Amino acid sequence: MTVTDIARRVYNHTWKLDPIVRSLLDTDFYKLLMLQMIRGLYPDVNVTFSLVNRNRDVRLADEIDVGELKEQLDHARTLRFTKKEMIWLAGNTFYGRKQIFQPDFLAWLADFRLPEYELRQKDGQFELHFHGPWMETTMWEIPALAIINELRSRAAMRNLGPFALDVLYARAKAKVWSKVERLRKYPDLRISDFGTRRRHSFLWQRWCVEALKEGIGDSFTGTSNVLLAMDTDLEALGTNAHELPMVLAALTNSDEELLQSPYRVLEDWQRYYGGNLLIVLPDTFGTEAFLRHAPAWVADWTGFRPDSAPPIEGGERIIKFWQDHGKDPREKLLIFSDALDVDTIERTYNHFKGRVRMSFGWGTNLTNDFEDCAPQEIKSLKAISMVCKVSSANGRPAVKLSDNPEKATGTPEEIERYLRVFGNENRVAKTLSV
Amino acid sequence: MTVTDIARRVYNHTWKLDPIVRSLLDTDFYKLLMLQMIRGLYPDVNVTFSLVNRNRDVRLADEIDVGELKEQLDHARTLRFTKKEMIWLAGNTFYGRKQIFQPDFLAWLADFRLPEYELRQKDGQFELHFHGPWMETTMWEIPALAIINELRSRAAMRNLGPFALDVLYARAKAKVWSKVERLRKYPDLRISDFGTRRRHSFLWQRWCVEALKEGIGDSFTGTSNVLLAMDTDLEALGTNAHELPMVLAALTNSDEELLQSPYRVLEDWQRYYGGNLLIVLPDTFGTEAFLRHAPAWVADWTGFRPDSAPPIEGGERIIKFWQDHGKDPREKLLIFSDALDVDTIERTYNHFKGRVRMSFGWGTNLTNDFEDCAPQEIKSLKAISMVCKVSSANGRPAVKLSDNPEKATGTPEEIERYLRVFGNENRVAKTLSV
Repeated sequence: MTVTDIARRVYNHTWKLDPIVRSLLDTDFYKLLMLQMIRGLYPDVNVTFSLVNRNRDVRLADEIDVGELKEQLDHARTLRFTKKEMIWLAGNTFYGRKQIFQPDFLAWLADFRLPEYELRQKDGQFELHFHGPWMETTMWEIPALAIINELRSRAAMRNLGPFALDVLYARAKAKVWSKVERLRKYPDLRISDFGTRRRHSFLWQRWCVEALKEGIGDSFTGTSNVLLAMDTDLEALGTNAHELPMVLAALTNSDEELLQSPYRVLEDWQRYYGGNLLIVLPDTFGTEAFLRHAPAWVADWTGFRPDSAPPIEGGERIIKFWQDHGKDPREKLLIFSDALDVDTIERTYNHFKGRVRMSFGWGTNLTNDFEDCAPQEIKSLKAISMVCKVSSANGRPAVKLSDNPEKATGTPEEIERYLRVFGNENRVAKTLSV
Repeated sequence: MTVTDIARRVYNHTWKLDPIVRSLLDTDFYKLLMLQMIRGLYPDVNVTFSLVNRNRDVRLADEIDVGELKEQLDHARTLRFTKKEMIWLAGNTFYGRKQIFQPDFLAWLADFRLPEYELRQKDGQFELHFHGPWMETTMWEIPALAIINELRSRAAMRNLGPFALDVLYARAKAKVWSKVERLRKYPDLRISDFGTRRRHSFLWQRWCVEALKEGIGDSFTGTSNVLLAMDTDLEALGTNAHELPMVLAALTNSDEELLQSPYRVLEDWQRYYGGNLLIVLPDTFGTEAFLRHAPAWVADWTGFRPDSAPPIEGGERIIKFWQDHGKDPREKLLIFSDALDVDTIERTYNHFKGRVRMSFGWGTNLTNDFEDCAPQEIKSLKAISMVCKVSSANGRPAVKLSDNPEKATGTPEEIERYLRVFGNENRVAKTLSV
């Protein structure tokens, strides 16, 4: 007996929109942590976030229909946190701590909606900007990226029939599972999903998260995606991002203030969070400069997230920093999160095993690796290196230097000034895959 | 919006039986061709078919619940050919010929039902026999095997959760598709599905057939499964099987009659069928004996299906037979169908390319290859070498010698007598994988 659900079939065939982002919790957890601090300390700062497609040869505006993009962004703007979501944020334990979000923040969040956006097309690219209060525009980063990436996936698969799609996803699942099988050889490994922004699609990210949960068990420590954390009873993970030092640096009035701004961020952070949330992200203006000028108390923090530096060299440099300050690295934590895949994870894990605690935030190569999965090659199924970054704060241009010059953002003049202040030591260009 | 079809959910959770065989057309096409001839020429012959599990170390009766087996066999006995099926059999063109089935045969078929069965358990095996008129018992071969194989698959997967099953089928699909990609390199290749009897499941066979249809296009010539041929608009393929010479041999009254019985089968067959249906299956009592004693007119037939001999040696021997009779092998057809997989197909194809027409009937390794697909190894997912063979005709023991002594069936005394009559030349033992 074959049963067709006629109502569903008719609904499917007449729908106008399949929303990509269906909840304001479908974002990275660190956005909420940062948001609470931004609203508390910088409620009047205006920040513009801008889309940056580092793969200029991929003409996004040719691949994606601008009308569909607008519909998706508009739909995201209709979202509010639901009652269930607000109750969960208030009642859940994050990083072992209850009531991490204060009542007045939650009261404000209940009315939150994503602010307006500015969208143009130019030379086959989208110019997408979010202007307004930092405590509003910051929340666009993840949904904007997730929407564009999923629209791109959908466009890439538009001409595939049901059978080709079946083979595509069968192969992608087989591929993820073969990665899981390689990783389960290391029972001490700690891995989390950091793949929201560049995921192939929401449903695919959910499948990958379920695969890790099923496949590596306790080695899977959680997901950065708040909605998936809630729905699958996992830990919501993540602490802070480059936007904090970028904005604070842009607001400074002298080179000396600029040089101190990365530590100012940490001071701000400590007023809100403690314990395992005390993770330093050192590479915004170069890790070498950060460590050289760092006050001694930075070595008291729980760990570092070396992001853009090569993992082994970056990790060794931080271990040396701890040792120079008389700290035992075995009590410290390194969180790796840049362009990881099974090879890098294995190599890094084996290199540092027993010398430091480690955790791996696995992103694009977990949730968007479809290489060789389509029955015929589809180039646009390959993930691209696209970010949504602070471009200015209170009208001043914002800069990121990064340990990898390929990841630098900002105007040439400002990058020049920042390099003069922070120096250019140990920054190594590395081609961006994702 | 997640929609649950409540009625379907309740139905699923309360059902008593998920029938494996749901149509009498879910059988191999050659059974119908043979059936028409058996009913026409041997309506009074009684034949017993018996299950033979050649993998004695697999204790079928421990793996499969006997109650479930009975339910499935009983359900198959409730089936009749439906009106749609009868109309299709009457109206479809098979092997380029219309009305291959005569009206009086179809009238009789409309009332056909599977006869009774005899089932016992002994030493961890099932003793399953079908006694009665040949024109009834012959129809049990394929459904009996398909039922037992699918019950075995179900038992093997009983403890898998939904996620493990998802990974299992994703990997199996990826595996089939990688085979398809290897085969599509040879546009001249001709392949058909012969995988009904040992399939993992009906739905899986259907997926494999769809994969071949989608993946190798015109190189996919059809399926032996009549139901799938009807439902997916493919050619129904297959001609005749060992049961014909086995029964005719068992009915003979002298060694000389016995020696002639394989050619008697061909004479019978020619009274019913012509053209591409004139395919010789030479190995029932050894290919060497068959060819040495064959009348010259056997070389006029369209082709041979060398079944149990190694494909290259077997094919060469038949080509020599054609050449000895002044025939051009390039106008002849060899159908390979024994334990094929991509390696064997490639090797055989490359060996004979340009010298003879070829076709490959791909069975178990197409429709039941789940090696390394389960998240944890499940031994009982591996296909076994199980057949349902004629064991006696009109009370006399039936024998198959085969080119591979491992495939011989019959009582030791009768095998001895047959070997004396037919000889033992060129028979080579080869371990049975499937």
